[in-house]
Amino acid sequence: MTYCVGLYLKDGLVMLSDTRTNAGVDHISTFSKMHVFEVPGERMVTLMTAGNLAISQSVITLLQQGVELDGEHHTILTVPSLFQAAQLVGVAIRHVWKRDGGPLREQRVDFDVSILVGGQIRERQMRLFQVYSAGNFIEATPDTAFFQIGDHKYGKPILDRALTYETSIEDGVKLVLISMDSTVRSNLSVGLPLDLLVYRRDALRTEQRRRIGEDDACFKQISEGWSTALREAFRALPHPQWP
Amino acid sequence: MTYCVGLYLKDGLVMLSDTRTNAGVDHISTFSKMHVFEVPGERMVTLMTAGNLAISQSVITLLQQGVELDGEHHTILTVPSLFQAAQLVGVAIRHVWKRDGGPLREQRVDFDVSILVGGQIRERQMRLFQVYSAGNFIEATPDTAFFQIGDHKYGKPILDRALTYETSIEDGVKLVLISMDSTVRSNLSVGLPLDLLVYRRDALRTEQRRRIGEDDACFKQISEGWSTALREAFRALPHPQWP
Repeated sequence: MTYCVGLYLKDGLVMLSDTRTNAGVDHISTFSKMHVFEVPGERMVTLMTAGNLAISQSVITLLQQGVELDGEHHTILTVPSLFQAAQLVGVAIRHVWKRDGGPLREQRVDFDVSILVGGQIRERQMRLFQVYSAGNFIEATPDTAFFQIGDHKYGKPILDRALTYETSIEDGVKLVLISMDSTVRSNLSVGLPLDLLVYRRDALRTEQRRRIGEDDACFKQISEGWSTALREAFRALPHPQWP
Repeated sequence: MTYCVGLYLKDGLVMLSDTRTNAGVDHISTFSKMHVFEVPGERMVTLMTAGNLAISQSVITLLQQGVELDGEHHTILTVPSLFQAAQLVGVAIRHVWKRDGGPLREQRVDFDVSILVGGQIRERQMRLFQVYSAGNFIEATPDTAFFQIGDHKYGKPILDRALTYETSIEDGVKLVLISMDSTVRSNLSVGLPLDLLVYRRDALRTEQRRRIGEDDACFKQISEGWSTALREAFRALPHPQWP
């Protein structure tokens, strides 16, 4: 499995993904699920992928080589807007579907891929999209300030409670790390290291990009600090005293 | 959907279920998913059901009417041990499978049911079982002190962090209410009112059985208190300061 979360905040984007892939419990590997296409000062586009690794790697390869969009050959580095970047991802997914969908179906393997596309290109708006396996997509808005792909449920309650569009980037980083930590603790198939990216609106370059390993002191502090804080909050909560 | 959680603690059992059922988002009803079979001083057996409502209602009806187990006609009120209560639930599920499995498959409806069976009969051990849709089952142990059925992921992180076999019944009640509250907030298809049951080991009668509605002051206090505590814990947690 996989867990990726992208925040669409007033001040920018926060993207976090795990790196674990598994085909059964005895075949576990580490693959980055975060792909950054950046020309500092001109564009910053980040993709995070979940689902079948063979499909998502094919999609990424196609996006690097370029596919046709509205009669023009484009890569993520040439599309003029983030909307078109999301469209391009959809086109690439449909290419892979045409090539691999039939044989996968014959072997009863789901065509399972979903991709978060976040970033900004030149003077256009910063945006965050979630592209589905059919190549269609939805966009984050101030009302729905985060997208999750992969095994999203364990990490959702804390986002539902604490995240809004107005949340600061610094708090957003704390939140995604807590959300990931809850997921990693409850699901063996999501695991460290993590890939974290922070983008500040209108910067047109990544502000922070970091691989977070098992021995990362900051992540340990978040993880252990949150556990301690939860235990204390739990202890302090009064027992229900029904009449 | 449904969310039911059963705790198997040193001092007793804590069982909590929601009551929402839905067939599509425009057909939502309230059905109790908790069924208590009690003869005070002799036996206390609680069943909680998740999955297809038609299947679980059929199973409960069969268990009330009685089915054959090892050549004898039994209901939950006549089986001599909790192990046999779990077996009986399995037999009842297999009866429904024989009757309805084929027609359901023809209409591409999954035969989806899972049932928690917890309690104690006479001088025998208190036990908690989870029965699967195939009629087989597993048992909770001090190492795995809780079972969840239905949409379990939202409510699992807090149990993973805070629950052990040694947890007191009072803390267990707080924990299942928090776990349920997280689920209700993240999943529209799980909803109040809730059914709560507390059983103290060797009591052979329920200690507490309660329907918790939207206006329950104690549940509100837990829900709001936990939200406040989480927000404060989150605020107090230091921002990660990578070098």
